[in-house]
Amino acid sequence: MELFDLIILGGGPAGYNAAERAGNAGLKTLVIEKRALGGVCLNEGCIPSKSLLYCAKAYDYAKNGEHYGVTAKDVAIDQKYVVDRKNKVVKTLVSGIGMKMRKAKVKVVDAEGMIQGKTADGFQVEAGGEVYTGKNLLIAAGSEPVIPPIPGLREGVASGFVMTNREVLDLEQIPAQMTVIGGGVIGLEMASYYCTVGCKVTVIEMLDHIAGPTDREISGILMKNYANKGIDFKLGCKVTAVTDHSVCYEDPDGKAQEVAADKVLCSIGRRAVTTGYGLENLNVVMERGAIVTDEQMRTNIAGLYAAGDVNGKIMLAHTAYREGEVAINTILGIKDRMRYDAIPSVIYTNPEVGAVGITEDDAKAKGLDVEVVKMSLKMSGRYLAENPDGDGILKLIVDKKYRRVLGVHMIGNYASEIIYGAAMMVETEMQVDDLKEIVFPHPTVCEVIREALFDVK
Amino acid sequence: MELFDLIILGGGPAGYNAAERAGNAGLKTLVIEKRALGGVCLNEGCIPSKSLLYCAKAYDYAKNGEHYGVTAKDVAIDQKYVVDRKNKVVKTLVSGIGMKMRKAKVKVVDAEGMIQGKTADGFQVEAGGEVYTGKNLLIAAGSEPVIPPIPGLREGVASGFVMTNREVLDLEQIPAQMTVIGGGVIGLEMASYYCTVGCKVTVIEMLDHIAGPTDREISGILMKNYANKGIDFKLGCKVTAVTDHSVCYEDPDGKAQEVAADKVLCSIGRRAVTTGYGLENLNVVMERGAIVTDEQMRTNIAGLYAAGDVNGKIMLAHTAYREGEVAINTILGIKDRMRYDAIPSVIYTNPEVGAVGITEDDAKAKGLDVEVVKMSLKMSGRYLAENPDGDGILKLIVDKKYRRVLGVHMIGNYASEIIYGAAMMVETEMQVDDLKEIVFPHPTVCEVIREALFDVK
Repeated sequence: MELFDLIILGGGPAGYNAAERAGNAGLKTLVIEKRALGGVCLNEGCIPSKSLLYCAKAYDYAKNGEHYGVTAKDVAIDQKYVVDRKNKVVKTLVSGIGMKMRKAKVKVVDAEGMIQGKTADGFQVEAGGEVYTGKNLLIAAGSEPVIPPIPGLREGVASGFVMTNREVLDLEQIPAQMTVIGGGVIGLEMASYYCTVGCKVTVIEMLDHIAGPTDREISGILMKNYANKGIDFKLGCKVTAVTDHSVCYEDPDGKAQEVAADKVLCSIGRRAVTTGYGLENLNVVMERGAIVTDEQMRTNIAGLYAAGDVNGKIMLAHTAYREGEVAINTILGIKDRMRYDAIPSVIYTNPEVGAVGITEDDAKAKGLDVEVVKMSLKMSGRYLAENPDGDGILKLIVDKKYRRVLGVHMIGNYASEIIYGAAMMVETEMQVDDLKEIVFPHPTVCEVIREALFDVK
Repeated sequence: MELFDLIILGGGPAGYNAAERAGNAGLKTLVIEKRALGGVCLNEGCIPSKSLLYCAKAYDYAKNGEHYGVTAKDVAIDQKYVVDRKNKVVKTLVSGIGMKMRKAKVKVVDAEGMIQGKTADGFQVEAGGEVYTGKNLLIAAGSEPVIPPIPGLREGVASGFVMTNREVLDLEQIPAQMTVIGGGVIGLEMASYYCTVGCKVTVIEMLDHIAGPTDREISGILMKNYANKGIDFKLGCKVTAVTDHSVCYEDPDGKAQEVAADKVLCSIGRRAVTTGYGLENLNVVMERGAIVTDEQMRTNIAGLYAAGDVNGKIMLAHTAYREGEVAINTILGIKDRMRYDAIPSVIYTNPEVGAVGITEDDAKAKGLDVEVVKMSLKMSGRYLAENPDGDGILKLIVDKKYRRVLGVHMIGNYASEIIYGAAMMVETEMQVDDLKEIVFPHPTVCEVIREALFDVK
């Protein structure tokens, strides 16, 4: 029975990143992963979708280049090539994580882990026929798609007619028509891809807006952009059944409707994975199906930590990274604290959406006294040069009393790469007048943030 | 004779931005501009070049889409359309600045200004037949291309065979072969554009490397990328003459060489404009052809300020913005100070280069005790997904004792939009361990900065 300072259950973003930090800090660390290092994010989430979306962007440029003086004939996209290419990218990155693990002297076991219990020596976890003991155990088991009890849905998944985030990335043929159930980030990114490459896409969303907690005006602009590109949005609609060739739903007037589909994507949400690996042997406190953690990612059991989707807080890979780091620091006795108020989020549509901190609506709900500065991205010369018909905007949410930036929200390209700087502004609590002294390069889209700071009263 | 709180000579980035800030702060402000609001940057520099370069990017995607599974036939670019489009973008932005001026209640005179002198009332400036008096005067006269006394060069400019940054943006036909004299930022961006759209480009550079003060390894990577795309770089070569169809130069071995050209771009540098507007009537202190300014952008004469290229410090539009703001704050009695150590710079080639702060070589020259962390951009999943053959890198220069980031240098796309966050790191002097707590969105290219922070010893 091999003794580790730390066993990590799950090799996704929370797990592999924590393992690397722990290993580099000298902790004897073991990662147990039943599928592939990188988890959902790398293997069937963030990375593969970005690989596909970038191909769609190239296709879009070739197809619609006339805005830029570029003409081309017979523009085509080879879906099988796109999927093969994605698989290569994923393979390279998975092996990169393997290298990182070796470099950090982390042991990796490719097997299903099963928690057996906790003794005075530590946590016992069985994997691949061996039992390992860890003084500390980090649960990083991730999440899985929610498949609600809608008639026909599970049968659809079984037959392959209904896809989750996993299968939608491996379609080797572009369907003629696809219906996406759920207009959140995953649904929108995939709708964006398939719409761009020529599929007729319908998005059915229960709420009266897409993109979940995104600033309402921005989600409206995003929807308008994709409605113009041909996506049919059905808002305020509740899916009632899935047949073998269609999705049935109730429209906002209560009328029964049906939309034909060659493929259906179910992307209505994800839930923490808390079964199947012996968690029940530990008496861990759970809430709403997720493991309860404190600001140090500790659970109710000494030495047991949980990071990433499994704690149900913010299901984003970069949240998982940071949570894993906080757990490791805590184990190492380094003071650290997880904060959730400066975590950026991105939707990799075209245009992209980037956001961090509170929205205007959040501020209202919390009764905060804020100033909202809104600005067209056309204030940026670069934006205008690249997007002559662009309708991108930026919103700054500023605390009136302390003159600090509480939120930044934008729609427009490069938002994905710009928003981390806004996260710095929110996280560091720097004052508006100090931020004005930062020099932004010209001409850039990010400059609009600087310009907006000058509009704060 | 109308009395102003502030007269600004020149409506480029230093001038128009200062005018807007001044007007919004309640100063009665006059801007005198002889050509067009926006100056060189907007009319014949940063913005038009970015408009062209984005068209080249679209063309490149269409032409070389096979890497992304995209095929197209008969891909073509319409140079006249590209130039017309650029002109529209510029026109929109120039009129946008006009609107900003009206909104800030700034008076604009479209005429050549001529300083007559200074009396007890203030500075007298004649423009368009009127004489205006300003309690303060801000010189924002910008810069002009250097045309060195090389035999045939001035004649070439006169005949149109040799172009400066101005004419190269208005070519309505793509030349078959172009020679670029000077491998700095302007030369490289234009070489990049014309190379991409099918012109055979030769770059002649006197130094043994391109891209001036850029990190040497990064300029090497940039050169390799464009050498692969077909640009012929002649390093360590001195232009000796320009004929009516070629450029003659001496190679590093001292041998006379000649390269044929249909067009020549002269981009060897820029110098402050200090004549032609009556500066000689003020006895202002100059050094190396530029107006000397202190940290508040004051000159030796009370009430006289200089911002932008005319003070010869860092000839970048965003430096000019900030300098103008410092001048206005100083006039308003608000404590402010111009700092030059966190000014980002960008080369808008493909891949882009972004940098801020000191380089490894600077650190050596200054005897600073630094740690250099170098990282491949392939550490970013997004980078790898979008650039499977990319050779981009990132370098962090960290002060060993204080654990502060002194420089960030990168080559790879999105660098232009990423580098402002690095400028924040340098400017705020935040410590590496605090920066590690900032959450970057995943998957992004900017994440490599975060990863590099974790590699600091």
